[in-house]
Amino acid sequence: MTSTDWLDQVRWDEHGLAPVIAQDAASGRVLMFAWMNREALAQTAATGQAVYWSRSRNKLWRKGEESGHTQLVKDIRLDCDGDAVLLRVEQAGGIACHTGRERCFFQQLQDGHWQVVEPVLKDPKLIYNK
Amino acid sequence: MTSTDWLDQVRWDEHGLAPVIAQDAASGRVLMFAWMNREALAQTAATGQAVYWSRSRNKLWRKGEESGHTQLVKDIRLDCDGDAVLLRVEQAGGIACHTGRERCFFQQLQDGHWQVVEPVLKDPKLIYNK
Repeated sequence: MTSTDWLDQVRWDEHGLAPVIAQDAASGRVLMFAWMNREALAQTAATGQAVYWSRSRNKLWRKGEESGHTQLVKDIRLDCDGDAVLLRVEQAGGIACHTGRERCFFQQLQDGHWQVVEPVLKDPKLIYNK
Repeated sequence: MTSTDWLDQVRWDEHGLAPVIAQDAASGRVLMFAWMNREALAQTAATGQAVYWSRSRNKLWRKGEESGHTQLVKDIRLDCDGDAVLLRVEQAGGIACHTGRERCFFQQLQDGHWQVVEPVLKDPKLIYNK
C-alpha cells in the first residue's frame, strides 16, 4: 500500500506550490531557490532526482533536462509549519545556475550595491546550445 | 547620497514580498525560510539584524523580538533572477525555530513519512513565557 499522506501534509500555497531550497550536500552551500507542486515533490521522492515546477514555463521542470546539471537528492526536509522544503543534493557538473555559475546566489550586497562575487564556470552558450 | 536602487533591483512578488533563506554562517545549516518586504530588507541591511515580514501577523517581524533569538546578519545575497534572498547569520541562542529547535527543517522524509529527526533544545514555554 502506498500512502500519499506525506504529500497531503505539505501546506501547498494558493497556487498549489511550495518553496524549495536546494543545498549542496557536501559543501553546505545554498545552490538555488525554486518551487515544487505536489507532482514535482512526488517525482523527486520517487526518482531521487530533483524535479521542480517552473512558474515561468508553467510546467514540470526536471532539473538538468536541458543542461545536464541534474541534482541527485540525498535528503528531503519539511519545515516546522509544513510550507517549505529543503533538499540536500549532489549537483552534477558542479553548476546549479543557468548563468553557468556554481549557484544562483552570486550577488552580494556591498555598500548599497549588488556585486557579482562568484565566477562563471562554463559559458551558458556551451551549456544550452547542444 | 543614499541610493535605494539595490532595493528596486529585487523582483518583489505581487504581494511586495521576496522569499528569504537564513543559513547559519558557521555551520552552513539552513535554519529557516521566511519572507521580507522592501522595508524588512532595508532594515535588515541598515541594522545588521534580520527583520522579516510576518504573513500571518501582517507586520514586520524583528526576528527574536519575543524569543531573544535574534540573527546577526553577516552576508546578504540575491539570486540570479533577483527574486530570492539568502542570509548568512549568527543565530543567538543557537535556536532559530519557534518549536525550540536549532532550526525549522527538522522533519525528514523517510519511507513515505515525515520523521522528526532533531531535538527540542529549549521548551517553547520557557522561550516565550517571559
